[in-house]
Amino acid sequence: MTKSISVGLLGLGTVGSGVVKIIENHQDKLSHQVGCPVTVKKVVVKNIDKVRDVEISSEKLSTNVEDVIHNPDVDVVIEVMGGVEETRDYILTALRNKKHVVTANKDLMAVYGSELLTVASENGCDLFYEASVAGGIPILRGLADGLASDRITKMMGIVNGTTNFILTKMTKEGSAYEEVLKEAQELGYAEADPTSDVGGLDAARKMAILATLGFSMKIDLDDVQVQGITEVTEEDLQYSKQLGYTVKLIGYAHRDGDNVEVSVQPTLLADTHPLASVSDEYNAVYVYGEAVGETMFYGPGAGSLPTATAVVSDLVGVMKNLRLGVNGKSAVTPQFPKQLKTEDQKFSKHFLRIHVKDQVGAFAKLTTLFSERGVSFEKIIQLPVTGSELAEIVVVTHKTSQKDYEEILQQLRDLPIVENVKSSYRVEGVGIV
Amino acid sequence: MTKSISVGLLGLGTVGSGVVKIIENHQDKLSHQVGCPVTVKKVVVKNIDKVRDVEISSEKLSTNVEDVIHNPDVDVVIEVMGGVEETRDYILTALRNKKHVVTANKDLMAVYGSELLTVASENGCDLFYEASVAGGIPILRGLADGLASDRITKMMGIVNGTTNFILTKMTKEGSAYEEVLKEAQELGYAEADPTSDVGGLDAARKMAILATLGFSMKIDLDDVQVQGITEVTEEDLQYSKQLGYTVKLIGYAHRDGDNVEVSVQPTLLADTHPLASVSDEYNAVYVYGEAVGETMFYGPGAGSLPTATAVVSDLVGVMKNLRLGVNGKSAVTPQFPKQLKTEDQKFSKHFLRIHVKDQVGAFAKLTTLFSERGVSFEKIIQLPVTGSELAEIVVVTHKTSQKDYEEILQQLRDLPIVENVKSSYRVEGVGIV
Repeated sequence: MTKSISVGLLGLGTVGSGVVKIIENHQDKLSHQVGCPVTVKKVVVKNIDKVRDVEISSEKLSTNVEDVIHNPDVDVVIEVMGGVEETRDYILTALRNKKHVVTANKDLMAVYGSELLTVASENGCDLFYEASVAGGIPILRGLADGLASDRITKMMGIVNGTTNFILTKMTKEGSAYEEVLKEAQELGYAEADPTSDVGGLDAARKMAILATLGFSMKIDLDDVQVQGITEVTEEDLQYSKQLGYTVKLIGYAHRDGDNVEVSVQPTLLADTHPLASVSDEYNAVYVYGEAVGETMFYGPGAGSLPTATAVVSDLVGVMKNLRLGVNGKSAVTPQFPKQLKTEDQKFSKHFLRIHVKDQVGAFAKLTTLFSERGVSFEKIIQLPVTGSELAEIVVVTHKTSQKDYEEILQQLRDLPIVENVKSSYRVEGVGIV
Repeated sequence: MTKSISVGLLGLGTVGSGVVKIIENHQDKLSHQVGCPVTVKKVVVKNIDKVRDVEISSEKLSTNVEDVIHNPDVDVVIEVMGGVEETRDYILTALRNKKHVVTANKDLMAVYGSELLTVASENGCDLFYEASVAGGIPILRGLADGLASDRITKMMGIVNGTTNFILTKMTKEGSAYEEVLKEAQELGYAEADPTSDVGGLDAARKMAILATLGFSMKIDLDDVQVQGITEVTEEDLQYSKQLGYTVKLIGYAHRDGDNVEVSVQPTLLADTHPLASVSDEYNAVYVYGEAVGETMFYGPGAGSLPTATAVVSDLVGVMKNLRLGVNGKSAVTPQFPKQLKTEDQKFSKHFLRIHVKDQVGAFAKLTTLFSERGVSFEKIIQLPVTGSELAEIVVVTHKTSQKDYEEILQQLRDLPIVENVKSSYRVEGVGIV
């Protein structure tokens, strides 16, 4: 059996401890898979004396990052400390020192992923980051495998557990957003400051990572159009249900020839869409490839055990490549120039809920506005608004360009009979395109 | 770069041609992943002169199986010819000649899988068979990866596209089984002789393969309790819908400590179950592991492109192991003795539809029969049967043992007020256990 492969960890929180435990407890299985043993050489922590729920000899602990990233005995660096700017520097140094890197850090990968992958490739190193997107789902490996003999044109993901938990509860119980958010915070499903989850930023980071890999284009966080769930109301969810849809916060990435669009937004999914039944804190990513067709990966999006498991799977990948002598080749660095779609190249159906003055001819004025641009309705509900002189109109349009739709919205707002545009969401049917 | 790895194919039908094409068209990507090139050395066909939709020089073709399985230049045998008995002999010979094998043959693996895996392991050879279960879904790799650091206790699969297509159509259109089967045959979704699909045998084979790998026990085809979809009526589907369920042909594998049960049967799934929205010819496998929790893999179950892609992925796995010198170690041969659950160890909810004489006290007699065994009802519908003196009663029971349920069924049939037990299916809620 060949020489042991040595691992250095940056961080020993719940994920880091999980990784150390799996490596200790599965030594036999790991060496069987790889053909050589693996050892944890050094672990960088903030406080050496802290009581931890994993056994590790104190001489393996250090408070000095250099002891891992400059350590000639460390082959693979596992980064589970979090953070962006400083962490980027550490990983760059590790890669330049010819160390392979496994990271669970989505904030880092969303912002500096392409740079880090390029440096990894230049140094003949692997940089694996499966745990950064939907911990319990082997989606990046699935995409990479698929890419070897397929072309991916569309990805849709429920990639944030907090917002999916909130929307599921709102839908099931008919409760208001604030109420459910509070409950989610008490249950530990939402942070005290939930902004990055409910505002869509967390999902946007993951979509930037997925789209970069899946389309082999450098998709930056700024390229992702983001709308969170804070404005979604009980009424929106109830109407959606009535019309046969489920509302989810959907990360959407679509390629049309060389043009690409990536967004995160509350979306009405047809109830029969595979993603519609992904409930509570679960995540799922739906992928369309030209050869394989539709596939979906479903599982826990977070949690220390699933995430640690994903990190160890990546470590096994690095170790296999080390022994094969093929490191730095399997990482896919963006190959194609990025061309973001313009508003007239984006097409979808839309859900629109508006309040209009309950006058004769009001509805006719609306329909004229839409039909002038060739947009017709697929579904319509009209009801009086109790205790007012207003009527509530809910429509689902047929497919229209984003450009036409925005212009219609603007004109609607200017119509004297329109009191208020209450809400507007993207609608996704079943099947592809 | 190291010496090329040579492949021999048994069979050159649509899947075999797909494999050859992928190998030819993705040479660069494949050698990048593995660290050496791959060559198709020899292909065994029935008829050399047949016109094919893949280019291959005639000296690579042979009608003699020996040219592959005894060929000292062949490292990996890809079996895509089908068949069971003869094919088993070929693969055994290949393995004994130290050739690694990739197969897409579920009939073979369901019957001789454990034997072949053992012989492979004894000869230090890999035997990979991802394409034998749900071609487009990397489920076996998912299970094997998961197994490295988890314990799988439950699997549920929609693993037959034909029956899922039929049940989906029956549910959507309210049509009768025979009618939809005919349509499926015309569309090419069902064979002229659909017995092995609609009778559940095809699904049972795949479940035997999945359970053997997932539980690491030798599950034989005979261990799988099988009920097909031929008796499922429009009425069953309509009542299920009304009660919030979707009927699917579900392959079910459950481990409880050392005891195991595997079945294939029409099952009512709660509409919110992730498998409930898997429609048409699609397949999906839902897996519960103690560490990772619930995951699901969804995709096309068949088709020559997805299947060929799965075969090539397996080939890449074999080639990596070859270069690592770890062949014959990643294949999981059954480790644990098999203990099939007895009827009093199997628990589930049940859907029951019966016709009773419409008399005072009829329903009370039924409930007494159930309550005497501590079984209560979760949902009840009672309606008169038009044009008769009968009432139709549909119930969903709370969880009960199979033993109690069978005895209740027997007693029901003996009750004078019971005209007919129309149907009875397993019911699966959301979540685990």
